[in-house]
Amino acid sequence: MQRYFAQTKNRDNFVLNADDLFHIKTVMRMTDGDLIEVVYQNNVYICRLDNINGDIKVIIVKNLENIVKKDLEIVLAIPLVKEQKMDLILQKSTELGVNKIIPFIAERSIIKLTNDKEQNKINRWQRICKEASEQSKRVDIPIVTNVKSLKDLTNFEGQKLVCSTKKYVNSIKMFLQKQIDCDKLLLVIGPEGGLSEKEETYLVNHDFHQVTLGNRIMRVETVPLFLLSIINYEFME
Amino acid sequence: MQRYFAQTKNRDNFVLNADDLFHIKTVMRMTDGDLIEVVYQNNVYICRLDNINGDIKVIIVKNLENIVKKDLEIVLAIPLVKEQKMDLILQKSTELGVNKIIPFIAERSIIKLTNDKEQNKINRWQRICKEASEQSKRVDIPIVTNVKSLKDLTNFEGQKLVCSTKKYVNSIKMFLQKQIDCDKLLLVIGPEGGLSEKEETYLVNHDFHQVTLGNRIMRVETVPLFLLSIINYEFME
Repeated sequence: MQRYFAQTKNRDNFVLNADDLFHIKTVMRMTDGDLIEVVYQNNVYICRLDNINGDIKVIIVKNLENIVKKDLEIVLAIPLVKEQKMDLILQKSTELGVNKIIPFIAERSIIKLTNDKEQNKINRWQRICKEASEQSKRVDIPIVTNVKSLKDLTNFEGQKLVCSTKKYVNSIKMFLQKQIDCDKLLLVIGPEGGLSEKEETYLVNHDFHQVTLGNRIMRVETVPLFLLSIINYEFME
Repeated sequence: MQRYFAQTKNRDNFVLNADDLFHIKTVMRMTDGDLIEVVYQNNVYICRLDNINGDIKVIIVKNLENIVKKDLEIVLAIPLVKEQKMDLILQKSTELGVNKIIPFIAERSIIKLTNDKEQNKINRWQRICKEASEQSKRVDIPIVTNVKSLKDLTNFEGQKLVCSTKKYVNSIKMFLQKQIDCDKLLLVIGPEGGLSEKEETYLVNHDFHQVTLGNRIMRVETVPLFLLSIINYEFME
């Protein structure tokens, strides 16, 4: 069943946004009586569509159980990268369970973002996460924050990790296998060319653990997918 | 250092193909005396460029050690999917260490491939794997085979795995953790909508292990990246 997120709930119906209504009518070509899933505040509702050709009504049929499980909260800090790579990271990270994405400016980031364009970008990124959440049937949408500096990242409360290209540091496996009680994890990824020595040292001096991802040389957009996959795996039952 | 694969080696130099020579001259704008890495039969050579503006010479300076380690051989069987998804799968799977990719026709594959177009497609796919191998500094290039049927897959000698959407089957983690001595592994992935009940049963009757990848709902192109990531992780030291 197709899934949509709603921002507003009335007593017996939901209000969906214009993009979603367009998707229902024009892309999915649904008709009166068709059922959809609507997620509202981490709850899933089965709803029936009515009056499709006018002012569409999304009527609640059934409130499914709240199926949110309090998992490990995973936050990814992603350097500004080219649009296509960022889109891939956002879509795939959402599928693989990320909770928050923090875009940040690294010394070697090629992409610069002016203040006036930042909010547009963030809206666009947030929309990609919403659509990927619907597709992968999540009951929550990852949050994309404003663009941060490296310094901002050090305020994070929880376990902090920086992916290093150094060989002598611990493997990510050694780190993850010790995180039985961890409930919040921040993962910082470097841009093309990696974080500078200075940046990495700065993070280490602020309680970040340096880890190596092994011997493979991955493109920057592959790293988050790798990290989220192995975190899913490590905490799989 | 930029890496290229060579097909032909003379006593003290290599012959590169036209695409690579174009890349050297026009994309990288290299000049006489610049060094590149050339991989030939799993060996890495440092080479010096000469006569860039004429008939380019790629002269061997040094033969680095053979750094191929006999790892687990990973074969992915991928249903025919749309071009953009296939490209992503090929590029990312190469980065993450796949050894062979077998495109196959599943009952629910949307894409059909006529015989006359098949060889062109395979050449294109092989080229994507070559470029990704260069970028990720591999010393080998994954092989893309002809398009196969489900029946062809059953001939594989080694451990055989099919990703299932069933809930009661073993997790991939339970399976991988037992594969200490495994040296060849075939992973079969379903198309959008999954393999049919009949297809899955057919594979199980031919010694395939059914495994679940957990609770996440992933797009078809995300599954190979997830699988290869966790295999790297499981066998990481």
